[in-house]
Amino acid sequence: MRLAPALLGLSIALALPLAHADTPTGKSPTPKELLEQSKPAEWRKPDPNNLLQMKLPQGTVLIELAPDFTPEHAANIRTLVKQHYFDKLAIVRVQDNFVTQWADPEDDDKGDKSKLRSLGKARKTLPPEYTRPIDSKLPWTALPDGDVYAPEVGFSEGFPVARDKASGQEWITHCYGAVGVARDVSPDSGNGSSLYAVIGQAPRGLDRNLAIAGRVLKGMEFLSAYPRGTGPLGFYENASQRTTIESVSLASDLPESERAKIEVLRTDSPTFAALIEAKRNRRDDFYRLPAGKIDVCSINVPVREAKAP
Amino acid sequence: MRLAPALLGLSIALALPLAHADTPTGKSPTPKELLEQSKPAEWRKPDPNNLLQMKLPQGTVLIELAPDFTPEHAANIRTLVKQHYFDKLAIVRVQDNFVTQWADPEDDDKGDKSKLRSLGKARKTLPPEYTRPIDSKLPWTALPDGDVYAPEVGFSEGFPVARDKASGQEWITHCYGAVGVARDVSPDSGNGSSLYAVIGQAPRGLDRNLAIAGRVLKGMEFLSAYPRGTGPLGFYENASQRTTIESVSLASDLPESERAKIEVLRTDSPTFAALIEAKRNRRDDFYRLPAGKIDVCSINVPVREAKAP
Repeated sequence: MRLAPALLGLSIALALPLAHADTPTGKSPTPKELLEQSKPAEWRKPDPNNLLQMKLPQGTVLIELAPDFTPEHAANIRTLVKQHYFDKLAIVRVQDNFVTQWADPEDDDKGDKSKLRSLGKARKTLPPEYTRPIDSKLPWTALPDGDVYAPEVGFSEGFPVARDKASGQEWITHCYGAVGVARDVSPDSGNGSSLYAVIGQAPRGLDRNLAIAGRVLKGMEFLSAYPRGTGPLGFYENASQRTTIESVSLASDLPESERAKIEVLRTDSPTFAALIEAKRNRRDDFYRLPAGKIDVCSINVPVREAKAP
Repeated sequence: MRLAPALLGLSIALALPLAHADTPTGKSPTPKELLEQSKPAEWRKPDPNNLLQMKLPQGTVLIELAPDFTPEHAANIRTLVKQHYFDKLAIVRVQDNFVTQWADPEDDDKGDKSKLRSLGKARKTLPPEYTRPIDSKLPWTALPDGDVYAPEVGFSEGFPVARDKASGQEWITHCYGAVGVARDVSPDSGNGSSLYAVIGQAPRGLDRNLAIAGRVLKGMEFLSAYPRGTGPLGFYENASQRTTIESVSLASDLPESERAKIEVLRTDSPTFAALIEAKRNRRDDFYRLPAGKIDVCSINVPVREAKAP
């Protein structure tokens, strides 16, 4: 079989079983073996108060908010979600190799402002939470290979993060699956009523220019596969091209039976460190020349179904 | 309007008109202004003998081969195309944040080998053209901000390239839109009968492990938006999920009227250098903090419709 081995072992979804990576090589454990050998304490269940469940016709997208990085944005998004603000809103924009964005479709040039959904109790403007002070008490998993954009990169509290010790600040990086807060030109104009997910090469030039509300834990394959919008910046030109969002809920507001049952590998765990090393230096036979390097946006944090308690 | 400005000026498709980028700032020329001011000699028409036109139900994908980097692969792909090898073959695999791959669907575990399309006059194995010697006589547009994976990066002959002076070798990088040659475990097993396009974060760990046959000049938005395959490695599990390729032709084999009329900005042109600088330091009002940096895979080479001769 030419096809499957063709790019075998190239999967970046480390949590998936990979036919080739399954093969014990006698050298180093494969990603799959590493995950199998991981300890239960290395996994965490996302706080249901930080977990958004976005129901789309194609499937459910799970987004973990990042209140330790962007607390006021997390609070405002929770307020919007509890008011069912996003229910029946739409995917309004898909720009290839860039972002998928969802929002109130009336909130564009052609929209009918009188039909704009009310923000209710949510705030209309928020302080620009683009960075946060580095807190040396929080776990930090540094990456060893540098970064084009920032002095230092690594993972903290489950998120890919860049740091600048000179300014004492750190920020979530715009990697694939990052969920950012759309805004107008004014830095305080983002309020969480319109969000975007990165669907292409990490647009790291956005770092420190927009607030990142969280990241997609599951369901990126739905957000990334919509037809690209043909209008400027990838906006859909006709209402019929948009996909309607069925609902967005906080897991904590759902009955236990409807809550997503997932676990995320802790980014300060030994298994995560071993996975990074395995990805820096691929050991399977397919690779002729392991890179010996890894970019912060080329590392997936494994997510799995939660085991029954 | 909240939406459009929300991520305004963030487009990486430099050749597109950007509402915000259109606005003269009185400071530096915008990407659109730079392109408008470019000289005709800064644009090149791809050699029709290197230009593949892949007709999909959704639209046409244009791929420029890279015979100066991978000559034997280019020659074999031309042979296959001239035999109509790819006509009515299929998109067999779409792995999220990784690759879209096309091939003979019978060439997988479940396929009927007796129905395999013949390679005809094409070779079944090829030398692994993963790198080429650096040729100091060829144009080289170096990027100033370094790279996680390679000692040096830049552009040569229209392609994003990494270099290692220690080994004297250079290679096309696995950026978004790169078209690579699928292979089996054996390094000489790639022959161009199965190709993949990168549709996510640049999988730079593949560099120097696979031959890159070329890159997509136009039509990535079709290759990137197919439903992700649900089988291992993103392969489609049922034939009905695959998209049939209508045809793949060399532009040079088509009548003049059917040849794509496009021009590509030369990567050794002053305008391309100015675009890189504009992208490193965004000047529009949306940006609070220009990155001052750029990654080799975050630069698009502008493509436009060719002007009438």
